[in-house]
Amino acid sequence: MRKVAVVGVGITRFGELWNSSLRNLTIEAGIKALNDAGVPGERVDALYTGCMSGDMFIKQGHIASLIADYGGLLPVPSTRVESACASGGLAVRQGLMAIASGMANIVVVGGVEKMTDALGSQTTGYLASAADQEWESFNGATFPSLYALMARRHMYEYGTTEEQLSLVAVKNHHNGSLNPNAHFQFEVSLEKVMNSSFVADPLRLFHCSPVSDGAACVVLASEDKAKELSDDPIWIIGSGQASGAIGIYDRDDICTIDSTVNAGKSAYKMAGITPKDIDFAEVHDCFTIAEIINIEDLGFFKKGEGGKAVEEGITSLDGELPINPSGGLKAKGHPVGATGVAQVVEAVTQLRGKAGKRQIKDAEIGLTHNIGGSGGTAVVHIFSR
Amino acid sequence: MRKVAVVGVGITRFGELWNSSLRNLTIEAGIKALNDAGVPGERVDALYTGCMSGDMFIKQGHIASLIADYGGLLPVPSTRVESACASGGLAVRQGLMAIASGMANIVVVGGVEKMTDALGSQTTGYLASAADQEWESFNGATFPSLYALMARRHMYEYGTTEEQLSLVAVKNHHNGSLNPNAHFQFEVSLEKVMNSSFVADPLRLFHCSPVSDGAACVVLASEDKAKELSDDPIWIIGSGQASGAIGIYDRDDICTIDSTVNAGKSAYKMAGITPKDIDFAEVHDCFTIAEIINIEDLGFFKKGEGGKAVEEGITSLDGELPINPSGGLKAKGHPVGATGVAQVVEAVTQLRGKAGKRQIKDAEIGLTHNIGGSGGTAVVHIFSR
Repeated sequence: MRKVAVVGVGITRFGELWNSSLRNLTIEAGIKALNDAGVPGERVDALYTGCMSGDMFIKQGHIASLIADYGGLLPVPSTRVESACASGGLAVRQGLMAIASGMANIVVVGGVEKMTDALGSQTTGYLASAADQEWESFNGATFPSLYALMARRHMYEYGTTEEQLSLVAVKNHHNGSLNPNAHFQFEVSLEKVMNSSFVADPLRLFHCSPVSDGAACVVLASEDKAKELSDDPIWIIGSGQASGAIGIYDRDDICTIDSTVNAGKSAYKMAGITPKDIDFAEVHDCFTIAEIINIEDLGFFKKGEGGKAVEEGITSLDGELPINPSGGLKAKGHPVGATGVAQVVEAVTQLRGKAGKRQIKDAEIGLTHNIGGSGGTAVVHIFSR
Repeated sequence: MRKVAVVGVGITRFGELWNSSLRNLTIEAGIKALNDAGVPGERVDALYTGCMSGDMFIKQGHIASLIADYGGLLPVPSTRVESACASGGLAVRQGLMAIASGMANIVVVGGVEKMTDALGSQTTGYLASAADQEWESFNGATFPSLYALMARRHMYEYGTTEEQLSLVAVKNHHNGSLNPNAHFQFEVSLEKVMNSSFVADPLRLFHCSPVSDGAACVVLASEDKAKELSDDPIWIIGSGQASGAIGIYDRDDICTIDSTVNAGKSAYKMAGITPKDIDFAEVHDCFTIAEIINIEDLGFFKKGEGGKAVEEGITSLDGELPINPSGGLKAKGHPVGATGVAQVVEAVTQLRGKAGKRQIKDAEIGLTHNIGGSGGTAVVHIFSR
């Protein structure tokens, strides 16, 4: 398979960006990434965009065409990929395949979501379309409640505590306070998290990622083009994707996200490494329990010991295995379609040693992990300097 | 690039399928295709699904996960691709790339749409999300009206007649009457078409494709797997995709669909052939004017002579260059996400010589052409025995 590298990254501020639109956010991130790569638009062979639902949030479908058009990149092939909150990660994987196939040499992969134009009361319903509508959402089970069930069971099975759930938020808010593009650039105390109001018991407000607007973009290149364009290409050495039962009612064990396990295994196998080789990871923490479950399922910690690892500071920025140096979905924000690409932006920024105040020392290999819904889809990428 | 073939096809009846669901339709087409290919589920490396908007039509997002799950194919990677009515064609292209990249050997590509569960009054609005919402749809320009503008201009520029627009429908209904899976399996007279009510002047009811439910599926395989699995693999010898201005207000010439021209050129170049080598084509006829414009833009006829070609019978089933032997979107039906895959099902069926009463004699090379919106996206594939 042809080798593929990331040669440019760009990201917008994440947050409630009422003065920008989906098309403008995407173009902003795209221009930043192309400038970073030093690639003029006419050299781009293909565009991929991860977006959960322009259809629902802003009533705009067919955004792949819109973005190619407004980006001044016609007639470049442009494709939208959707897998709920894993849309961005999957778009990266399609970009990788396009180059690996030989059908493209330079590919721009964006992720975007404009969520705050919809009414808050609609947003939860729109997001719930990523669950099994017939068996979950129509019966009232929205994502906070689904993840609450997973949290409660994890507490019951493994003794995971409310404090551990809260410490994920404290850590990620600390990291986010060092990220100038984060939605929430402030620290939160353990007390504040633990006293915030319940959203779905045991999950409180500060256990939940926010509804955000934002876009992120990366420029991928084949080996020869990467070496021509960049002094510090970041190589994609592993890619894994897996599907799991869309509904949690249909799983043997709701304390494990099978798709994460399988996507991780595929990515490690392709990279020829083990979880021990990973220096840091951006992990899908849509709710703090998700970070705990996923760092176990990625093989970083034994099942049931994720909460303890957070408590012991292992996953802190200066710990042995920093998790979510960007602030994660929790603090950086979660414009759903953008998230998977934003994770790659952070991994590349860290591996380039350009992460400023949140820089991880001597990072050589980083991992990104993006899931859709409650785990119906997972995608993992591994990057190396 | 690794060679890729189609080794299995499956399709549901198209129509108002009120007794089936999106998941059931997709699985039905998938099982037919896998049985046709003789491939057990455990040999499938990846799934791709083209779907315009489960989000809007049935409030179900994340359908890639749903389909892998309900298809009993977990944990196979599953990805949804969207580009409005070109979603199916783009899904085929992603499946092709997945195999060409070496990351998969056997890929199942489905296309599906469940449109008739929505109210008719909503459906036009949902479909209009594929136009530029800010500049077209919000101002009332739905697709019938956009194509009506294109038709009126084509009539003005080239003398295309209402009769020629109508003869496309007469031809496609004839073909559809020979297709047991078509939404409309009946002939229509020229008089009936020309006296049907206006939808958007000059387009009448019988100039418009219907709102349909349905699913189609193809099994793709790498060269070695194709030769193992099939005695008559149908090779994908060309693939082209291009973007065009999403809004027709932003085009130099609304009598041409630039994306069709560019996608066609890419596909011919990859296949190393010219339009003269094509024996038949499935062309995107969402409105009859679209067939006329696209057969010109694909290089089959000079600009302005598409209508005349239809009138002279060149594009009839027994003509020199049969267009839409399946009945096309007009008569076969247009479940939007399924259409691009259904076109491939027809092309393969014809090339296998298994098209029954609508079989084209001695067909060696066939082309499929699928567009999104009014031409913001186009994708062309070329197939050979």
